[in-house]
Amino acid sequence: MSDAATDIDDLIALMARLPGLGPRSARRAVLHLVKKRSILMKPLAEQMGRVAATARECTLCGNISGTELCAICASEARANGELCVVEDVSDLWAMERSGIFKGRYHVLGGTLSALDAVGPDELRIPRLVARLAPEGVREVILALGATVDGQTTAHYIAEQIEPHGIELTSLAQGVPIGGELDYLDDGTITAALNARRAF
Amino acid sequence: MSDAATDIDDLIALMARLPGLGPRSARRAVLHLVKKRSILMKPLAEQMGRVAATARECTLCGNISGTELCAICASEARANGELCVVEDVSDLWAMERSGIFKGRYHVLGGTLSALDAVGPDELRIPRLVARLAPEGVREVILALGATVDGQTTAHYIAEQIEPHGIELTSLAQGVPIGGELDYLDDGTITAALNARRAF
Repeated sequence: MSDAATDIDDLIALMARLPGLGPRSARRAVLHLVKKRSILMKPLAEQMGRVAATARECTLCGNISGTELCAICASEARANGELCVVEDVSDLWAMERSGIFKGRYHVLGGTLSALDAVGPDELRIPRLVARLAPEGVREVILALGATVDGQTTAHYIAEQIEPHGIELTSLAQGVPIGGELDYLDDGTITAALNARRAF
Repeated sequence: MSDAATDIDDLIALMARLPGLGPRSARRAVLHLVKKRSILMKPLAEQMGRVAATARECTLCGNISGTELCAICASEARANGELCVVEDVSDLWAMERSGIFKGRYHVLGGTLSALDAVGPDELRIPRLVARLAPEGVREVILALGATVDGQTTAHYIAEQIEPHGIELTSLAQGVPIGGELDYLDDGTITAALNARRAF
């Protein structure tokens, strides 16, 4: 009897380690799961076990995949000479949701950070440089965050890529679609004004 | 390859059905899980499967348990004649965390609600009445929410229990511990003033 209570406590403790869930919301989630055992909890447990058993990093780009090469790296159609560099898999997903980019990706796995002792070798930057020639990359698009660490990383990558004579671009900075000037920070307004273009 | 991507999408869709998680936070949680496959995702999937297979409702009180009777109902030490009526298992857990109550519980599974067509039979109220004599209950403590539905339910239960000549109490209402008057609503202040006692 106390075993079941302990099992539930253990489950709550594990759930509480997910980002966005604390002890209280983990309890709420577990209670919801227990109430919907057959229609939600069992399928979720099975699906989670399946993904845990199959998911791994694509050896080429770092995307999450069930095979050695992810679907994007394995698709010849996406070898169009464009390579988009992102910080994390979540950024790759965000780019894919927009559906606008037709090339391949390279997931760094973070940003350079002296504070956290993250150097170029921790980030897949050498692997990025190694991909350029074999894949016939013509343009590297830096889609890194507009943070200090993101821009430091962008400048470091730019230095590494310069000798290869490959076109290097980065995402435009400016007013987000649907954004109101009143709610924008000074930095964004400055960037948008500096990058203004003919109407 | 696309199988793995679909597996992950399916997992995100399932996670997004948890309370407190939306599509965006479910994606974040799944990404975190995939990154911590061996130390978090596998144990969580196994634990969830274990709880899904064993957890059920205690046939007596409605608490969640791994056996027909929960640990509290099975413990003779807790048959002290006090029966605490709560709305939900989460309320039972909250009472148990305080550690102050030494009797048994009865989980209603909700509150009476004409709007949601929840009647006494949906709520284990007949089962509550049926427990009173066999278990030698001396006092029923109503620990229901201070909401309209909670208080409606409390009054209905009071009517059902009255003929049995059992003492009926409810949790005190007043200023919460650590509460500041300035932040309390009028209803709480009114209740606290009406129930004032000698200092």
